Amino acid sequence: MNKKLRIGVIGAGRIGKLHAHNLVNHVPNAEVAAISDVCLDAAKTLAEQLNVEKYYQDHKEILADPTIDAIFICSSTDTHSPISIEAAKAGKHIFCEKPIDSNLDKIKEVLAEAKKAGVKYQVGFNRRFDRNFMHVREVVQSGGVGDVHMVKITSRDPSAPPLSYVRVSGGIFLDMTIHDFDMARYLSGSEVEEVSAFGACLVNPDIAKEGDVDTCVITLRFANGALGVIDNSRQAVYGYDQRVEVFGSKGCIQADNETANNTTHYTEQGVYKEKPLYFFLERYNDAFIQEAKDFADACMNDTDTPVGAFDGMQPILIAIAAGESCKKGGIPVKVGA
Amino acid sequence: MNKKLRIGVIGAGRIGKLHAHNLVNHVPNAEVAAISDVCLDAAKTLAEQLNVEKYYQDHKEILADPTIDAIFICSSTDTHSPISIEAAKAGKHIFCEKPIDSNLDKIKEVLAEAKKAGVKYQVGFNRRFDRNFMHVREVVQSGGVGDVHMVKITSRDPSAPPLSYVRVSGGIFLDMTIHDFDMARYLSGSEVEEVSAFGACLVNPDIAKEGDVDTCVITLRFANGALGVIDNSRQAVYGYDQRVEVFGSKGCIQADNETANNTTHYTEQGVYKEKPLYFFLERYNDAFIQEAKDFADACMNDTDTPVGAFDGMQPILIAIAAGESCKKGGIPVKVGA
Amino acid sequence: MNKKLRIGVIGAGRIGKLHAHNLVNHVPNAEVAAISDVCLDAAKTLAEQLNVEKYYQDHKEILADPTIDAIFICSSTDTHSPISIEAAKAGKHIFCEKPIDSNLDKIKEVLAEAKKAGVKYQVGFNRRFDRNFMHVREVVQSGGVGDVHMVKITSRDPSAPPLSYVRVSGGIFLDMTIHDFDMARYLSGSEVEEVSAFGACLVNPDIAKEGDVDTCVITLRFANGALGVIDNSRQAVYGYDQRVEVFGSKGCIQADNETANNTTHYTEQGVYKEKPLYFFLERYNDAFIQEAKDFADACMNDTDTPVGAFDGMQPILIAIAAGESCKKGGIPVKVGA
Amino acid sequence: MNKKLRIGVIGAGRIGKLHAHNLVNHVPNAEVAAISDVCLDAAKTLAEQLNVEKYYQDHKEILADPTIDAIFICSSTDTHSPISIEAAKAGKHIFCEKPIDSNLDKIKEVLAEAKKAGVKYQVGFNRRFDRNFMHVREVVQSGGVGDVHMVKITSRDPSAPPLSYVRVSGGIFLDMTIHDFDMARYLSGSEVEEVSAFGACLVNPDIAKEGDVDTCVITLRFANGALGVIDNSRQAVYGYDQRVEVFGSKGCIQADNETANNTTHYTEQGVYKEKPLYFFLERYNDAFIQEAKDFADACMNDTDTPVGAFDGMQPILIAIAAGESCKKGGIPVKVGA
Repeated sequence: MNKKLRIGVIGAGRIGKLHAHNLVNHVPNAEVAAISDVCLDAAKTLAEQLNVEKYYQDHKEILADPTIDAIFICSSTDTHSPISIEAAKAGKHIFCEKPIDSNLDKIKEVLAEAKKAGVKYQVGFNRRFDRNFMHVREVVQSGGVGDVHMVKITSRDPSAPPLSYVRVSGGIFLDMTIHDFDMARYLSGSEVEEVSAFGACLVNPDIAKEGDVDTCVITLRFANGALGVIDNSRQAVYGYDQRVEVFGSKGCIQADNETANNTTHYTEQGVYKEKPLYFFLERYNDAFIQEAKDFADACMNDTDTPVGAFDGMQPILIAIAAGESCKKGGIPVKVGA
Repeated sequence: MNKKLRIGVIGAGRIGKLHAHNLVNHVPNAEVAAISDVCLDAAKTLAEQLNVEKYYQDHKEILADPTIDAIFICSSTDTHSPISIEAAKAGKHIFCEKPIDSNLDKIKEVLAEAKKAGVKYQVGFNRRFDRNFMHVREVVQSGGVGDVHMVKITSRDPSAPPLSYVRVSGGIFLDMTIHDFDMARYLSGSEVEEVSAFGACLVNPDIAKEGDVDTCVITLRFANGALGVIDNSRQAVYGYDQRVEVFGSKGCIQADNETANNTTHYTEQGVYKEKPLYFFLERYNDAFIQEAKDFADACMNDTDTPVGAFDGMQPILIAIAAGESCKKGGIPVKVGA
Repeated sequence: MNKKLRIGVIGAGRIGKLHAHNLVNHVPNAEVAAISDVCLDAAKTLAEQLNVEKYYQDHKEILADPTIDAIFICSSTDTHSPISIEAAKAGKHIFCEKPIDSNLDKIKEVLAEAKKAGVKYQVGFNRRFDRNFMHVREVVQSGGVGDVHMVKITSRDPSAPPLSYVRVSGGIFLDMTIHDFDMARYLSGSEVEEVSAFGACLVNPDIAKEGDVDTCVITLRFANGALGVIDNSRQAVYGYDQRVEVFGSKGCIQADNETANNTTHYTEQGVYKEKPLYFFLERYNDAFIQEAKDFADACMNDTDTPVGAFDGMQPILIAIAAGESCKKGGIPVKVGA
Repeated sequence: MNKKLRIGVIGAGRIGKLHAHNLVNHVPNAEVAAISDVCLDAAKTLAEQLNVEKYYQDHKEILADPTIDAIFICSSTDTHSPISIEAAKAGKHIFCEKPIDSNLDKIKEVLAEAKKAGVKYQVGFNRRFDRNFMHVREVVQSGGVGDVHMVKITSRDPSAPPLSYVRVSGGIFLDMTIHDFDMARYLSGSEVEEVSAFGACLVNPDIAKEGDVDTCVITLRFANGALGVIDNSRQAVYGYDQRVEVFGSKGCIQADNETANNTTHYTEQGVYKEKPLYFFLERYNDAFIQEAKDFADACMNDTDTPVGAFDGMQPILIAIAAGESCKKGGIPVKVGA
């Protein structure tokens, strides 16, 4: 392997740009060797910004390049599993944005191919790399709350996506809550066995016409007996509301929102604090960098990736069960296999 | 009516003592005229402490006293509805500790008798008088969070009651969550139509043998379309954890726990804040006083009590539905009538 | 002595009313037996409100009443020391609002007379009874911050008093900072030996014409070697700002402001917390009650009062030194004796 | 000028390493072209770590290199002004760690030479680039607290330096408080005219033998009439305590400490928060990066540096006055010119 991990970034949209910039500026043992996008101009523009020599329209050219060690799959959701399979066959290490696929068989095929090829596979559950949530996990793992009794996650986006996005998103559970399902597993250290979801359309009634909801409460039952609860909204006008709490036999640990600064302003009208950071790009900026660093390290040192393919699959299974429960008005549904 | 509201306190146990002391020391327009308890010694001791002249074993002597204007029913739960009915017939205003009854017909009879007699009826949902929750309610009512989308309530006791108590408590939903169901109505300004409850026995497995749970998550669907979620535990080792949050189209308002003081202590080992106040006597001390004052004012000024008989009934209906849902593994249950 | 401590309240202005109400409503082992005020109507009105039988224009009638055990001196500042001396000679226990006098000889005479008469003497340094500051003191006394290195006190009034008041107040150090000087002694557990004061007129230039300042920073040197710093303003538009901090070899403890409730309100515009409670009547309400209770207990049980005459004198000496330093542009001045 | 600003780093000690790493990893439009250190091995080691081609023992070789645009002076304090003068003469832009010099004439010579040569000059007052303090400054500048009445700065190091360091540090005011004097100017937007300092040796009595203090309170009088106060300690066992507050006619704004994460841990023993970040490397990590970026931008775009030579001189003048005041027991001293 090269002195630096040579990476091809597939997809030059918002998340592709983010990863490419992070890899160039913040991951010393990696370099971006090529960028592809179905829109060649997008690939070209990004490549020029970052002094990346090669750019393509077809990601297959990246996979065919023997000097490239690893790829970041940042293309549209429906391409995640096919490209994963192609890349595994080409012997490239894979960082894949979530979700791998909404089809369980496809996911299993991805897992099998990655295993067969012996390549690293990491899924983009960036929140696991947030300094606050990492600390919560550490405290839980070290027994700081005793036996886990309950995991609570609040996760609200600052504003609802356009209907065009909602239509192809796979629904709120696969698109948005999937991160919270990952958090639930990460923080509890246990698998989710059963799920019940109450949903409603309170932000935008048009979302209901798409068969989706924009507000929901999801209750979880974990394999270790603990309970979990997630509340979601597509629109928190005060910013991206991302909090977690783990409660157990010996105590409770909470992580709060992050803000642009920690000042307090006292005036005749009241006392003001900063709002939560606007959205995931702001809140999880450091986490995105850390996940890329950890992926590069795992590839370079031949160690396990911190979020493997199995971790990529489980939240999808929970999301599918949640969707089914929500459609049935909240009847509990077992998480399938 | 007298210059001061003359009150008979029925029941000289923990909550009876609390109300009697508050009435004597903190409610200027009320006086405790008599105390009764099935254990005469208890009534006597309390009466002597408070310089109350009359004490009885039989509460009927209080009801027969024409100089007494109102009663506080602080006796055992099973006596709440019968004494309420007797008192209404005797023309006394009634402050009744929760719950009125677990039998819906009995509750309706109480409501009917109180209405017929034209007496005031107030139920002891003390949390409505907490300064923090009152402010949350005010902000919600004045549109400070816009349309309500979600109500979240965390309610954890510091330690589980003895099994002997669990056995006769009516179950966690009627005993403990009932306060949270009241809060849900109070904060949302809407009725609960449907409920789903996931329960578990994580604190003490013996509670399961009594057919009860000690840890639960309850999801609510309100008449106005909003969702709600309550999480309960019988044991939070760090103290009485009582927080609420109302989230809506224009924002979110939260109330936090109360502590003995607001100091922060920085040492080499860490940064320490005070734990939440231990239990309801400490946390809701001022709220207990306020509810007694408001009851006395309603009686003296012939105005509506702040928590009427209907408010006393609704949480019981929700609790019954929650209990049924929990027994059925979380299947949603409509709140009956 | 009577079963209850019979108290005469001298002065029916703002602070006299406060104490009279607290004694009647919150101090079970005390009763208000008489009220006097140079304006008889004020005494009468207050007496009637509180069902107090006797009221006078001349406080000497209170002192002459053999059934009265103790007095509260709430009259104008210039009468504090003369009435103290008269009351001591009349054998009454004395609660005296601060300051005793601005003349050192007068204070010493008061101390001597109280001692000779063997009556209890307590000065109205109410902040010592604030739950937060009490906790800070306890932590310091129990070694929680190790050796004290620094005491910091922020003390700002919500709005400047009228010039007519400023003119007779004795200056900011005797009128306002005196409470902070008491806090400095209380929290450090040491005497102030030297003081330097920087003052300015930033709130209202007319205050300068009266020879006073409205903004100041006072540095203290304690007998135990520690340093202290107080910052004052006559006008904090956001409310009564009252915070303390004690820093030492093993850590630091801080007490923050109190608010009407602990809610947090998130909106599109920002995150709002409650302002500090408006002024001393709101912030120190519980502290005023506690100091009266403790005075009554000391009289009834013949124990030391929690804030004795010496404690009443020391802050005045510091205030005099601070005034001198401020006039000299901040040159350090030894605290006299 | 080159596409990237080519920088020579003079001094490969703690702060030189810090800046070199930041320039390489976080300042895209700069590159480290050479490193020098009187200990050649130190220069070599750092150069190899960062893939910097050239390293020298003598900084003059850097100054003689025509391809180098700018230098970072990170060598020992006594070399700051001579190297500044040499570099200005060599036409290099200069980033100089604080303090420029303790001798006023030398500083003026540096200013004159830099001006004559037309090179950029920036002094390493890193705290101005802290996100919290920057926000405080913005709020003050935009009128958010009205007219400034008071600036308060708490600044405590986690542990006292060794005596060998104390001996050559120039004393606490030039070594440590100098940053706070810069903050005072930065936050108030006004010059300090007069200063009074109370000092004590409470952390380590041996520091007194060196003629220095380890604990102090410094009061400031600003040109605009406002007052300021700084409290310092060489040892806060709970970490680097760095807080500021600006109070004025329309309100108050405060910035708090930063922590490794924002979690709260509730246990039976108490409620724990994280301690302040340990020391300046942790707390001001982002600020160090930002000041280097801003310096590079000023050089590349030929704009003013954010902290010029005059800003480098003023805190030294204040420090000298503070030292004199402290030696004289706190007598106020005018800030010289």
